[in-house]
Parts: sequence; structure tokens; C-alpha cells
Amino acid sequence: MSKIKDYSLADHGRSSYFWAKSHMKILEHSISELARKKPLQGYTIASSLQLTKETSVLLMGIKSLGANVIASGGNPLTTQDDVAAFLHSEGITVYAWSDQSKTEYDWCQNMALSHKPDIIIDDGGDLNAKAHFGRFSKLHILGATEETTTGITRYLAMQKKGKLRYPIIAVNNARTKMMFDNRYGTGQSTVDALLRSAGVLLASKKVVVCGYGWLGKGVAQRCAGMGAKILVTEVDPIKALEAHMDGFEVLTMKKASKLGDIFITCTGMSDVIRKEHMLQMKNGAILANVGHFDVEIDTRFLLGKKTRQARPNLDECTLGGRKLYLVAKGRVANLVAAEGHPPEVMALSFSNQIRCILHLVKNGKKMRSLVHGVRQEIDNAVALDALKSMGVKIDTLSKRQIQYAKSW
Amino acid sequence: MSKIKDYSLADHGRSSYFWAKSHMKILEHSISELARKKPLQGYTIASSLQLTKETSVLLMGIKSLGANVIASGGNPLTTQDDVAAFLHSEGITVYAWSDQSKTEYDWCQNMALSHKPDIIIDDGGDLNAKAHFGRFSKLHILGATEETTTGITRYLAMQKKGKLRYPIIAVNNARTKMMFDNRYGTGQSTVDALLRSAGVLLASKKVVVCGYGWLGKGVAQRCAGMGAKILVTEVDPIKALEAHMDGFEVLTMKKASKLGDIFITCTGMSDVIRKEHMLQMKNGAILANVGHFDVEIDTRFLLGKKTRQARPNLDECTLGGRKLYLVAKGRVANLVAAEGHPPEVMALSFSNQIRCILHLVKNGKKMRSLVHGVRQEIDNAVALDALKSMGVKIDTLSKRQIQYAKSW
Amino acid sequence: MSKIKDYSLADHGRSSYFWAKSHMKILEHSISELARKKPLQGYTIASSLQLTKETSVLLMGIKSLGANVIASGGNPLTTQDDVAAFLHSEGITVYAWSDQSKTEYDWCQNMALSHKPDIIIDDGGDLNAKAHFGRFSKLHILGATEETTTGITRYLAMQKKGKLRYPIIAVNNARTKMMFDNRYGTGQSTVDALLRSAGVLLASKKVVVCGYGWLGKGVAQRCAGMGAKILVTEVDPIKALEAHMDGFEVLTMKKASKLGDIFITCTGMSDVIRKEHMLQMKNGAILANVGHFDVEIDTRFLLGKKTRQARPNLDECTLGGRKLYLVAKGRVANLVAAEGHPPEVMALSFSNQIRCILHLVKNGKKMRSLVHGVRQEIDNAVALDALKSMGVKIDTLSKRQIQYAKSW
Amino acid sequence: MSKIKDYSLADHGRSSYFWAKSHMKILEHSISELARKKPLQGYTIASSLQLTKETSVLLMGIKSLGANVIASGGNPLTTQDDVAAFLHSEGITVYAWSDQSKTEYDWCQNMALSHKPDIIIDDGGDLNAKAHFGRFSKLHILGATEETTTGITRYLAMQKKGKLRYPIIAVNNARTKMMFDNRYGTGQSTVDALLRSAGVLLASKKVVVCGYGWLGKGVAQRCAGMGAKILVTEVDPIKALEAHMDGFEVLTMKKASKLGDIFITCTGMSDVIRKEHMLQMKNGAILANVGHFDVEIDTRFLLGKKTRQARPNLDECTLGGRKLYLVAKGRVANLVAAEGHPPEVMALSFSNQIRCILHLVKNGKKMRSLVHGVRQEIDNAVALDALKSMGVKIDTLSKRQIQYAKSW
Repeated sequence: MSKIKDYSLADHGRSSYFWAKSHMKILEHSISELARKKPLQGYTIASSLQLTKETSVLLMGIKSLGANVIASGGNPLTTQDDVAAFLHSEGITVYAWSDQSKTEYDWCQNMALSHKPDIIIDDGGDLNAKAHFGRFSKLHILGATEETTTGITRYLAMQKKGKLRYPIIAVNNARTKMMFDNRYGTGQSTVDALLRSAGVLLASKKVVVCGYGWLGKGVAQRCAGMGAKILVTEVDPIKALEAHMDGFEVLTMKKASKLGDIFITCTGMSDVIRKEHMLQMKNGAILANVGHFDVEIDTRFLLGKKTRQARPNLDECTLGGRKLYLVAKGRVANLVAAEGHPPEVMALSFSNQIRCILHLVKNGKKMRSLVHGVRQEIDNAVALDALKSMGVKIDTLSKRQIQYAKSW
Repeated sequence: MSKIKDYSLADHGRSSYFWAKSHMKILEHSISELARKKPLQGYTIASSLQLTKETSVLLMGIKSLGANVIASGGNPLTTQDDVAAFLHSEGITVYAWSDQSKTEYDWCQNMALSHKPDIIIDDGGDLNAKAHFGRFSKLHILGATEETTTGITRYLAMQKKGKLRYPIIAVNNARTKMMFDNRYGTGQSTVDALLRSAGVLLASKKVVVCGYGWLGKGVAQRCAGMGAKILVTEVDPIKALEAHMDGFEVLTMKKASKLGDIFITCTGMSDVIRKEHMLQMKNGAILANVGHFDVEIDTRFLLGKKTRQARPNLDECTLGGRKLYLVAKGRVANLVAAEGHPPEVMALSFSNQIRCILHLVKNGKKMRSLVHGVRQEIDNAVALDALKSMGVKIDTLSKRQIQYAKSW
Repeated sequence: MSKIKDYSLADHGRSSYFWAKSHMKILEHSISELARKKPLQGYTIASSLQLTKETSVLLMGIKSLGANVIASGGNPLTTQDDVAAFLHSEGITVYAWSDQSKTEYDWCQNMALSHKPDIIIDDGGDLNAKAHFGRFSKLHILGATEETTTGITRYLAMQKKGKLRYPIIAVNNARTKMMFDNRYGTGQSTVDALLRSAGVLLASKKVVVCGYGWLGKGVAQRCAGMGAKILVTEVDPIKALEAHMDGFEVLTMKKASKLGDIFITCTGMSDVIRKEHMLQMKNGAILANVGHFDVEIDTRFLLGKKTRQARPNLDECTLGGRKLYLVAKGRVANLVAAEGHPPEVMALSFSNQIRCILHLVKNGKKMRSLVHGVRQEIDNAVALDALKSMGVKIDTLSKRQIQYAKSW
Repeated sequence: MSKIKDYSLADHGRSSYFWAKSHMKILEHSISELARKKPLQGYTIASSLQLTKETSVLLMGIKSLGANVIASGGNPLTTQDDVAAFLHSEGITVYAWSDQSKTEYDWCQNMALSHKPDIIIDDGGDLNAKAHFGRFSKLHILGATEETTTGITRYLAMQKKGKLRYPIIAVNNARTKMMFDNRYGTGQSTVDALLRSAGVLLASKKVVVCGYGWLGKGVAQRCAGMGAKILVTEVDPIKALEAHMDGFEVLTMKKASKLGDIFITCTGMSDVIRKEHMLQMKNGAILANVGHFDVEIDTRFLLGKKTRQARPNLDECTLGGRKLYLVAKGRVANLVAAEGHPPEVMALSFSNQIRCILHLVKNGKKMRSLVHGVRQEIDNAVALDALKSMGVKIDTLSKRQIQYAKSW
């Protein structure tokens, strides 16, 4: 009942799955402990996740806990067709393929919801949005989990208007997700995307990092680690001050646009790099976005110019006498031009996902229809699992120390 | 009416004051804007702060806003006598000198409270504690501000038992305080303390950082920046995981004690480096504490051994055939063996202090007797002031972007 | 007269060429200055270089100076077939294709020499070795240039035995080559190779860098920049001490083999990672070589085990219950699994190449049949060209300063 | 027969000596092996070294090998009087005290030579210069060793004119001296000098490093490690390119003078920061020199302005409305305002010193009157000693590997 691109790619996808699984020991650890009791037996779980080798480990894990799993993609472009084929071959219903039109993407999400899921796993909020309006607004849903800041922002807006129908756990806000996934994961995969798409020397280049949240911090740190000079633009004064104290050059986008060799948007905001900035850039400048949506760079303007593909995932756009290079058409560069987060990092948020889903199954009915944080004890359990799976031992407080803490 | 060590040191203290003032432009900026209206006229403000050239700028600033200022020390050992003399010469009542006994320290704090302050500025919670019990428990106090985690922990314990008598603003929790002061300030001044007291090469040394909160992060980053190899001990799994991902070796104190060349406690907890650890350490190991109290290293054990002063602020303690070196007798090393935070960093928290004191004067009566955070708008204002005073300009959201943020 | 794999790939190769050319401004600068006079008119130049988009810029540049250019590969595996097709389409005679057998590789080099070159450009020394023995030992060759340490070591051995027939300029020893190419180029491309082949998180991993010459330094610095913990093995005490002072853990291969998550050989020596080391490694360890030859890791042992391809350029080898992963079959990982040096870095050594070739054409007959260094003035000229092409201006000594330097 | 400032300081100097000795295990190791045979019995050795706790370990070490040791200072300002007193109390003849006039300094050196030394240990070349001209030009001297680049430059000038009377070993050029001493030693002690004299926050500051030799590299790396933004000025294109690739901003002194918060000269050249630069600097800028002579900054101009001491070793100079701050009057900042190299680093060059002195005693008569490098086997022995004394074990080449190296 799946609809995917090429059923013959299952073996290739299986090989990717096994590789990822072997680097997601944290997740395996959580799952193997729980799998015997089949705690998700009888539940239908619909996901709107980027289909990659790593998410395949999550979905297979959920399946092994007894659930009926339905997978649609998290983004019209980013589905890996071999992974889709593998999941289908393992009995998961998949509606996803690469390079979808908006209509196709929409259709897939509709199909996912038509299975009447009990739980939704979302990455960006598209599936949850759909489950709130129109024909799906009557579905009985226990609750949902959300991977991204973007999704959460959307739900909070809905919550403010009293429109949220069921509890949503902001997995993205777990400390083991936000700090690790965004910082270490995207930090590395952004470098990866730059190397694969443009392949230029990073040492000595001026890299303009737009936004200094967890994402921007990770990108700045890794690019600096490759020898680049970092320039940061921000709108939040505290983050700006932090970037300044971290030794980076903080300045306005206007000034930065004349100086940068490479520009990376990490803001979650729209209209960050605009026409007036691009008109000021140096010949040969490279632009990439790693924020969730492709609205950070004005790609309509840039791709409207004379354009040719210089390298895979790299478009050369001619503005007057100068050439600018756009990575992955301004879409999430580390997903499109590289392979997204490394498996070790995704395992952290997926371990959170599973523990939150189990929490929803148990407690969803009692929970208010709000955006909920991940409970501290879940967060700690995930971190401890992670340390164990990497062979790291830490101290615990002695009685005397606990006494001391209480002594005031 | 002051009681200090040596009134003749005022000129030396004045010179330090001017130097600090010239590096605390953020603070000067805040003060000069407010000074004309004398908004603190008629108020008595008692402080229990480490008396350094930087705090002299804060206290002089508060005085310039019209207040009657009373200064006692924040710690029996750390008063700089020239600064005390200077403040006295400027009309501030000072009860503080270096190397006090516990009794003397106590006496000074009693004297400060005997002035019936309206507002208390505290660093560690000793003065506020005193104002809650015994003969001072009837004082009418509008509110207090607190610089340290330690103080806040104490107040929260009191709050839990319903014992808090007035609102206390946790300046320490301001993002512009906690992130900057602890990380950049102590990070640097800990290196400074090691260089002045021990003067050994940091490159290639194994530095064990106990605790990976903001303090430990700052210390780890700067010691790594000097070429050291960092080993981290923690009890919090999420912080431990962060240290591990930041590329540091995470391990138990037991294991670390055999490997380290230098040990630095940054936990806020007691009994971190214990007898059993010291007995395992390498000959020549150096121990320092930068947490608020001198309870992190078991100095009673260590200083109970045969001891001689090897260098200023460095005691050589002989354990069996081995010699261990203790910085500043286990007291706050960066304050005792160096000069504490650099002025630029203290200016941030002092700018917060002043804005919070003004807030208390206006709103203290209406506020509940709880520990309060610093309001986001105060925090942002401080950061923006800081950026301005350093000549850094940042972007602001365009209408279109604000629209975008609201659009969900 | 070329022999290549697929003539239809020329357009793809041309696109790569233009991209590389736009990032090799230094080289373009040198060439465009010289091109009018066609100083290489009438000379035949044979190369044994890895055929990549970057070397295509060098070869096209040499051609534009008037030379008759013959290109064979520098390695049986690494030829990029599209580049070969492009060069052929531009009138360069090419004998090279990807995945050659030893016999095919040999045949190509024979064909290159059959054109009776005046100058040889070599990368590893295979072509020069061939030109010294057997049927090619009577060729009249003006001189040669060499890109690698490996090649130079071979020539020095030949020189010691008095067997060198013509002067060879060790371009590899130019400061603008050795320091930059090996350190910044391979540093980055090794990270690139790890990300593409294995795609694991580097942050927190223990990376064992075998050898701390320029190559090892670059690799260590970049892996540390990605958050890894670096362990170094060395046989040279001074280099070992340097690594130790740089904050890295220095230890024996025996000890390192139990600790590492990733191993990278950078020595130029054989038998660095041996059977006894692999038998000690952790399950999941990844091994890669970036030294010139595939003799640093005992791949005969490792690939003799049960092996399957886990990902492109990554073989999973089963030893007892554990799985080890070998990148690019132990061949030069950054060339096979990534794209070699970034263009900006190669431009430096290629700029040296061209200036040295012109030097040989002018002075080759007068030069002794020895390995020659690159002349200081050539080296300086290349650096100055590079700075200019990147818009960097530097100071020059004033008369007074020159006077001062002479004053002793 | 000594002439020093205060004989009563011997105990304080002894305490410093023991502390330094305990951190100079490398040196102790070398000495203890040799001490039994008293290989320097009957030789008089005159030194012109900065008298610090570290040099006291060297001089005591030489004495323990049987030599008659005469110590004059290496610089009119930098003698530590307690160390001088200690050395005197141990039977070394000392002519040195702090804050000497040029005449006093001269007198001390004359006294040292009047003992008719067999060997000279020099730091800057003053004593060797004196031993070539006038009344000392007839002394029979076996040879000398030299610690600094400056000294060597002077001797090379003399050698060029055929004026050198005896062999001088350039200890400074030993790899274990130049790379370690200048880079790790001065790197750290420059940070130390800035913290003690100015005490400002380094994070976020723009630090202009003039010169990117070993010295400048060390200073840049450590200041970057403290969170500063590094700007580099250079006259050598290759070093400039290296700084650029290391991620630092390279620019002319003219441009840098407007941008920097802190300026550090590391060139060995005169007239690096000139009047025209100072007139452009920001209010509050800090200037320091760590090159050997106080000619790098135009201090005559700067100190000619209205000047007051802002802090110990920090002069505030008023230029128009702006104030510039000069560390240590432009003299070697890390020696005057801090304690020079950390003991571990000095031990390396002193270990070289002793091995070179023994070499001179054995072979001096046979050696030509030239500047000689340190022999590779001495250099390696020092490095190996150092590694051993720090508990680091390294690999050695196997027979098979030696075979491989020879196989070409």
C-alpha cells in the first residue's frame, strides 16, 4: 500500500540501515530494553520525518515495540529512495519519494493521516498542522512529538489561539536534542555540505554565519576549526555579545555582505540574505542555508538570474559581471548536499522520541493540549544511556555532598 | 566611622579605580545616563562584596546616584586594602580589611547592617542570611540583589521553608551575568591565578576540571587554549555528555586523580577532591579551587601535612614521598592569587546590579518575598549597552521578518 | 592518440575544470603573465599526476605556454575519467583511466615516455624511475619536477648511488608547497574523506594520527577542529615532543591501538598499523591512510578477512567477533574517497611547478644531476602572488629597518 | 667578590630555585647523569644571562659539573636580586642587580670577562661582543653558546667580516630551543605579562601580532586561545601566507593601527610601531614588545608624552585626547612584567646548553671560528630526555621499516 519511487533499492537501503544502526548504539540500547514487552502493540504511529538511514533506525525501532508505522517524508526533496524501499520491504507503509512537487508531498501526508494514527512524529509541523484543520480535524490523536524549532514555533502560535487539539512534546527542546543535535550534528554536516558541494579550501576564508543560536554556534565552531575566519550577524543582543566574546567578528548583514567568501544562514527567520546584500557580494561568493525552511536566502531573486549547475548541488548564478554560488538551491544544505546529522547525534534525539512516545501512550489522555517540554528525568536518562554506550563513567554525589547541598 | 587597615593607601586605590573605570565603559554608560536624577537619594545601600578595583567602580556609581553606601567585604580574605582606603576617602563607610578572622568578618557585617539598609547587595549570601535571623530580623528591607550561585541556592532553601523576608533578585542568573562572568571572566582569571601562583607551563599538562557548568566550561576552554589537555569530572549526565562532545576526556574523580598534573574545582559542591584522591596523585600535582567556598578540596587534610610556602599563594604539602601544591589555601584562587574577573566582565554584572537596584527601589514593595530572576528587558538592555560601548552594531528584525515570525 | 575510458565525459570534465580554475586564481595569475611569450613552445612535457580538476588547470596552463603535453595518471586508481576526457578534447594526449591494473598503469607510463619528453612532472616518482632504467634510460631529459616526499626520497636514494641522470627540482620541498599543501590541503581533505566514506560524528571520537610531520599536523589540527580527541604516534623524538606540547596525547602504537575510534596513517613509512595492532582494536574502529603509498596499513591481512562494502569506499572487515572499517582499501584516502586537495592549495604548488619548469627550460643543461630545492626567490614570488590574488597586502621593510638589520 | 644588591635575599632565591628545579626535570636528568665525572673541572665559565630562578638551575647545574661559574646579567633591568643573592651564597661569583644603568651593566660584564673564562654563555651577544674588541680581545676562549636570535644575527654579521675569534654554538637554532622556547614559552609568558600588567579581558579584543615567526606564532596561538581576535602584520610573504591560512587577519601596520586593542611586537626588527601608527590608535590601546630589544616600538616618542604609571609595569601616555598604555616601557614584556619562560621550557634549551658546553670543552679547539648549529644528535637526545622526564613513550622504527626506508 506504500507509494515510493523504486522498490528494487531495498537492499541498498538495508545496508545503510545496518551501518547507521551500528553507530546508533544509544538508540539500540533504549530499544532492546523495551522491545520484549511490545509496549506500542495496537497503536498506529504516523511520521513526517526526513527519510534517511538514521530515521530508518528510529522507525524500525518503533515497529519493534509493536506499533503499526506509517511513514511520509518531512520535506518534498529529501527522501532517500533506497531507505524508503527498505522500510517498505520491512512492513512499514511508506508514502515518500525524492524530488516531490508540493502536490505530491501533500498527497503523501494526507495518505499518512488516513491511517488514523494515535501518535504523530513530526519534523517541521506539516503533519500536525494538517491534523488540525479540514477533514483530519476529527481524528482522535493521543499526542505528538516534534523534532524542530520551526514546528514548535508553529504549535505555540496555535496554542496561543487556543487551537491545539492534543498535547505535543517538544523533543527539540530536550537538552540532549537541542544542544547536541543542532550544535554538534549540524556543525559537522554543514562543513560536510560545503566540502561536497563547493569543495573549496575553508582555511583563510571569511565565513559569515547568520544567527548565533545553537545552530549558528555549531556552524561557527566547526568552520573555525577548519581554519576559517568567522563573521557573525545577529538580531539578539545577548547572542551577539556571546559571539563577540567567543572571538568572532560581529557586524551587520550589510557590512558582512561585502566581506564574506561564504555565507551560511542559521536563523529560522525569513529574508536574512536579501537582494541588496547579494548585489554587494564578492565575485565567487558561496551561499548556503541550514535553517529549516528555504526562506532565509532570497533564492527567487538569485535563481532568477542566469544560472548553470557548476557542480552537483551547486548553482552558479550570474549577477552583472559577478558569479555567486548557491548550495542546494537554498534548501537545508546539510540534508540535501550532505547526509544530515551523523548517526550518533540523531540517536540522541531519537532516544528522546521513543521515551516521549511511550510517555504519551501512558499519559497522553491526562495531558493538557499544550506544547510540553521533555521531562528532566527522560532527558537525564537519555544522556546517561549515551555515556554508557560510549564507555564513559561519571561520578555520583556522595551522601555527604547531598547533605551539603541541602544544608542551607 | 569606617574601619579599614591602612588609610594611607587611598591614592594607590584611586589609581586602580581609574584604571578599572576606564575598562568598565558599559557601566559608566549606564550610570552617566541616570546620575542626574539621583534616583537613589535617601536610600541606604549595604554591600557585602569582594572589595576590588572593579567593585569600587560599582559602589562609586551607586553613590553617584545619590545613595548612602556602606561596604563590608564578601569574604574574610579578599579585601584589597588600598581600595577600601580609597572608598573611605570618597565618603563611603567601609568595614573591611584583608586577612580577617571569622570574628572580624562577622563584626564587619554586623556593622553594615546596623546602618539599617534599604537595599542589600550580596555576594555569597552571608549578609542576607544575617538579615534574616537574630537582632537584624526586624529590619525593613526593600529587597536585595545577589551575585553568586551559592547565595541563590541558600535563598531558595530559605524560600522553600517560607523564611524569605523580602524579594531578592538573582543577578547571577541574568544571562549577561552567568554566561559572561562565569565563563569568560573566571576562565581567564583562573589561568591568571595558575600563572602567578605556580607559573608552570600549561601546554601539555593534564588539567582536571571538576564540574562542567558555566564555570568549568570557561576554565576548560581557556586552559585548552593555553595548550593543556583537559579531563573533566561531572555528576550531571547532560553536562558530562557535553564535555565529552566538546572533545574533552570525561572520567571519574578516582581515575582522574592518578592522571592529572593540575586540578581545578568548579562545582559549588563540597568534598570534590578528597583524601583518597590526593593519596593517588602524582608527585608535583597542583590543586586549585575557583568555586565560591573553600570546601571543594579537603584542605584540612592537605594543609595538615608538612607544609611550606613554595611561592606566594602556593603551599607545598608533603604526603609520604610526594609533594602536592595547593593554590591560595583552597580559597577562590582567581580572587586570592589573581585579581578576580577582568573589569570588562564585571561591568556586565554591575550594570545588571544597578538596573536591578533601581527596579527594587521602584517596585520592591509590590514584589513577593521570593528569589526573582532578572527581567528579560533588563538583560537585553545590558547586552545592547555592552555592544554599543565596544563599537559593535547588530541587525534588527525588519517588519517583514516580524510578520514572518507571527505568520504561523 | 590518447587512451582513456569514456570520451563522452568531456563536458562534465570541462565544467569541473572551470570551477577549479575559478578557485586557482594564483595559478591563473602566474600563467596569464607568461602566456603571451609561449616560453614552452617546442618542448614536450610528460606528466604522471593524479588526473583531477585541479591538475587539469595545471596541464592546460602548461599547454597555454606552448608546450606539447602528455598526461599519464599518478596512481592506478585515482584518475577522474571526465577530466581525462576533457583534457583529450583540448588536444592533450592522455593515457589514463580509473581503476587500472598494475599492467595498464605501466603501459600508460611507457606510452608517456615514448613521446620523448624534455621535462617530466612527477607525483611519486614512478615516471622518473622508469626514465632511468631499461629502454627509456637513453632519453634526453632536461630535468624533472616532483610533487611528493615519497618521490624525493626515491631520488635521493638514487642520487646517493650516483644514478641520477638529470636534475630534479623538489617542488614538494618548496615552503609554499610543503607547509601549505600537506598541512592545509590534506588536513581538510582527510576530514572530507572521513565524512564521505564513514560519515560518523567526529566530535568526541579518539582519532589516532600516526606521524606528526606536516601531514600529521594538518590532519591532527583539523580533526581537533571537528571536536575529536587526538592521539599521536611518532618515531621522531622532536616531532613527538611537539605533538605533546600542542596538547595532544603522545603514545605508542601498541597502546593507541586499544584506544582509538579512528586511525589515520600519515607517515610515508611502511608497516605502521600491523596485524597485532588490528587484533587489539575496538569493534567498529575505522582505518584510513593518507600517506602516499598503501603500505602503511597491513591491508593484506585486513582485506584477507571476511569483507563486505558497508558504504562507498568503506569496507567492513570481520575479525573474530569485531568489525573494522577500512577507507578506500588503504589507498590515499583523501584522493580516493574525497577530491584531494582543494583547488586553492594545489594552485600554490602548481604555481611553483610552472616557475620551476621554466627554470629547467632555461637552466636545466647547466644544472647538476641532483635533487635541487626550489629557489627562495621562486618560493617568495609564489607566496606574494597568492597574497595578491586573495587581496591581502603586507608590509615591506623600510630603509631604516634594512639599515638596522645590517647594523651589527 | 660578587657585587649584588641585597645579600639577605638568598633564602628567598633558594626557595625559587628549588621550585624551578622541581619543574626542570629534563635538565636535572641530564645533569645528574654527568655530575659524577665533573667534566667541567678546571674550566671557568662566564655567563651573561637574565638572572631568574630558571637560569639559577642552569648555573648551579654547570657548577655541579665542576666549573668555576661567573654570572653577569643579560639585560640591565631584569636581574632578580633574590636569585643573585642565592647564587652568590652557593659560591658563584655574581655581578648583577636589578635596574642597572648602562654603565653599571657594562661594568658587570667587564668584571665577568676579567675572570678569563674558557667558555661564554650569552643571551643577546653583549658579552661575546665585548670579548672581541678592546682589552678582552686577547682572551683565550674555547667557544661560546648563544640563546637568542638577536645574538646570532650579530655573530653572523661579525663572521661575514671575518671577525669571529672562536666558535659559537647557536643553541637558539636547536629545534628543541627555537620551536619550543619561542613558541610555547613566550606564547604563555606574553599572556602572563598582559594579565599582570594590564589585567584586561583578552576575549573579544583585537590583538595585533607584529611578526609571525616562531615567536609571533606562539603569541598569536595563545592569545587566540584566550578568545582574542588576531591580526597579523608581516614583511615575509611566506609567513604572511601562513598566518592567513591559519585563520588570522593579515594586514599592513598602517591599517592594523586603527583596529587593534592590544599590539605585541615579535619581530626582532626596529621601528615596527612608529609615531604615525600611534597617532592612529584607539583610545585605551595597549602596546607591548616581546622581541629581544626595546627598539620595536618607538618608546622615545611615546614616553616623551605626558606619562603616569597606571599599574605596575604599565605606563599611561597621553597623546592629544587619547591615552595609550605601554607595558614594561617597551622592554621584553614577558621578562619584565612576568617571569619569562616557564621552567619546563627553559629546561629544554638549558639541556641543550649543557650538552653544547661539553661539546665545546671536548672539541672547541678543533672547531672553526664560525657560528655552528646544534648537532642533530644533541637535539634528538634533548627531546628524548624531555619525553622520558614527562613519562611519554614513543615508537621506534622496526627493522622492516628501516629496510623499507632504504629500499629505494
